[in-house]
Amino acid sequence: MLEFAITAEGPEKSRCGKLQLTHATVSTPAFMPCASVAVVKACPPHLIAEQGIQVMICNAYHLWQRPGTAPIAAAGGLHRFMSWPGALMTDSGGFQAFSIAGNSGVSEDGFAFRSHLSGEMLHLSPEKSVELQNELGSDAATVLDECVAYPAEKEYVAEAIERTARWALRCKEAHSNPQQALLGIVQGGVYHDLRARSAAATADIGFEGYAIGGLSVGESKAEMLAALHAAVPELPAKAPRYMMGVGTPLDMVACVRRGADLFDCVLPTRNARHGSLMTWQGPLKITRREFSTDERAIDQNCTCPACTNYSRAYLHHLHRSGEAAAWQLLSLHNVRFYADFMAQLREAVARGRLEELEARLSAWTVRETDHENRQK
Amino acid sequence: MLEFAITAEGPEKSRCGKLQLTHATVSTPAFMPCASVAVVKACPPHLIAEQGIQVMICNAYHLWQRPGTAPIAAAGGLHRFMSWPGALMTDSGGFQAFSIAGNSGVSEDGFAFRSHLSGEMLHLSPEKSVELQNELGSDAATVLDECVAYPAEKEYVAEAIERTARWALRCKEAHSNPQQALLGIVQGGVYHDLRARSAAATADIGFEGYAIGGLSVGESKAEMLAALHAAVPELPAKAPRYMMGVGTPLDMVACVRRGADLFDCVLPTRNARHGSLMTWQGPLKITRREFSTDERAIDQNCTCPACTNYSRAYLHHLHRSGEAAAWQLLSLHNVRFYADFMAQLREAVARGRLEELEARLSAWTVRETDHENRQK
Repeated sequence: MLEFAITAEGPEKSRCGKLQLTHATVSTPAFMPCASVAVVKACPPHLIAEQGIQVMICNAYHLWQRPGTAPIAAAGGLHRFMSWPGALMTDSGGFQAFSIAGNSGVSEDGFAFRSHLSGEMLHLSPEKSVELQNELGSDAATVLDECVAYPAEKEYVAEAIERTARWALRCKEAHSNPQQALLGIVQGGVYHDLRARSAAATADIGFEGYAIGGLSVGESKAEMLAALHAAVPELPAKAPRYMMGVGTPLDMVACVRRGADLFDCVLPTRNARHGSLMTWQGPLKITRREFSTDERAIDQNCTCPACTNYSRAYLHHLHRSGEAAAWQLLSLHNVRFYADFMAQLREAVARGRLEELEARLSAWTVRETDHENRQK
Repeated sequence: MLEFAITAEGPEKSRCGKLQLTHATVSTPAFMPCASVAVVKACPPHLIAEQGIQVMICNAYHLWQRPGTAPIAAAGGLHRFMSWPGALMTDSGGFQAFSIAGNSGVSEDGFAFRSHLSGEMLHLSPEKSVELQNELGSDAATVLDECVAYPAEKEYVAEAIERTARWALRCKEAHSNPQQALLGIVQGGVYHDLRARSAAATADIGFEGYAIGGLSVGESKAEMLAALHAAVPELPAKAPRYMMGVGTPLDMVACVRRGADLFDCVLPTRNARHGSLMTWQGPLKITRREFSTDERAIDQNCTCPACTNYSRAYLHHLHRSGEAAAWQLLSLHNVRFYADFMAQLREAVARGRLEELEARLSAWTVRETDHENRQK
């Protein structure tokens, strides 16, 4: 079940929406933290919910490998297994499968590769991916796609989008759970014509939503935005569009301008574990020596557990000591920042003030696309 | 400042009390989780407070080495540095110093040894330990003592208690902070006469409270209890007695019978990180395969975040996946169990029902003294 109501339209192709899924309704544009193995690293789900996050994304490949779909299905699905009150999307596992299998592991019938955990030989077909996601019981599943590495020859990318389209059709035919939406995925690398062709082919098959995949894998920010821009006109205007693996706040604004509604990225939590924090005053590296005696909160206006309870000096100490408590507190701060940022972004779209929002982020000097931050 | 009011007396030498310290009042018998580096591993202080814990113990040696006393003093002391609303005790660092320095590093003037972090040569004298703890601003400091390894020749232990007594006097003379109580420490290994002599010598110097140190280092449970039993008659009846490094619930009951009021041990949190949980139905090893599909809470009557939010199956999965979220949730469960257990223990003392409490723990098959669980 997926209903998407566009509630406001802003500059260029930006829009706000209400995305109604089986377990929860999500205000878009929305950011989905990565709970790849059914948990955001260092952060139990109830603490993520408390930061204002409405939807997370889990990974079908990782959960297939551990704990397996059986204990999750026995619990009544992923929501109950992880006690998550919001919505859940699942990644098909195609990104991980391609990362491990490489070109040589791809055939018409999917991916053949060895489990990164057990070493066992695995076969992930379109039907298997749909079956796994169905057993997991996420609100929205994604089709198995071939996420080509960057850079790639145009000829190979052209083959890959044809294969991805054939797989998408097989996924749609294999999918029969009315409680679970199914999203198609647009590929095509950095080639505008292939992006448009892939989008048109995917739209022809017809899905409840569309993901733009295969980006944030090493291409430039301009290439990434151009690929999105080439795909969007071919997709149904009333379906939600999910920009996979993006990204920084400024990247998300740029993608929203080009019509994106949903995002996921490990950036906020991975950066946090490395001590890189986001604030409205710009990035803050808690590991810097100057913070060892700084009694202020990371951000005095932030309502996350780190900012309401602790000083920069204490968090600096915990992080320097390698304490897991630091990973959690700093991750929750960045997650709260993303939740707050998306709320500001929705308001900026509705009021036609995207430029003002971008100006507020002008202090940001962080790399605008961090291509290594897509979780393998 | 330390005021200790005995509010109830129970079987044998057991008693309940109110221990009033500068920052908080603690109901005794009380258990102090180990926040050695100003945090209980994986658990930010506000989450420990939420489990009903009133007092924690920090370590002067660890904090001296990182972050140093200066940033903590600048923050206004340890309570403000770590945003801890309860009471705090500090360990003198003697246990760590002796662990690193060994017999050969001990002289009349304290310990000479290399920092486990920087490799720098350090000197920890009685005066230095008091100075460090004073800068940290804990509610209760402990004197520098020589915690002899087990087993040890009686002759060496006899020397060590004399040295510990001389150091205790120097600590008392060096201590001048009326906001901070100072506790003496009884040593004497497993030798009853030396325990009694050390207790009498420490009591003669006169402190606001007394710790029984040098136990839970490898001796049998019977030896540990006998050593406590030998020391208690020599200590002032109205001063609190702190049994260092103990222990399991059954050990704490046995020590309370013999007159102990305060405890600390890394057991609940270290065991939790290894998947060993405590419940009123007995110990539970979350790593066991049978829990992979168990939808029940660890303990359905427990109010900790793990039990109120998550199933055994989910916690099994998180722990098996090596997720820091598991370390936290399982640690908070055991800390909540200890807090609840101490409340039951206080009630059992007041109502003269220690045997009933022990019977409730009869399901416990865990080793009753875990001598490796004293944090180095």
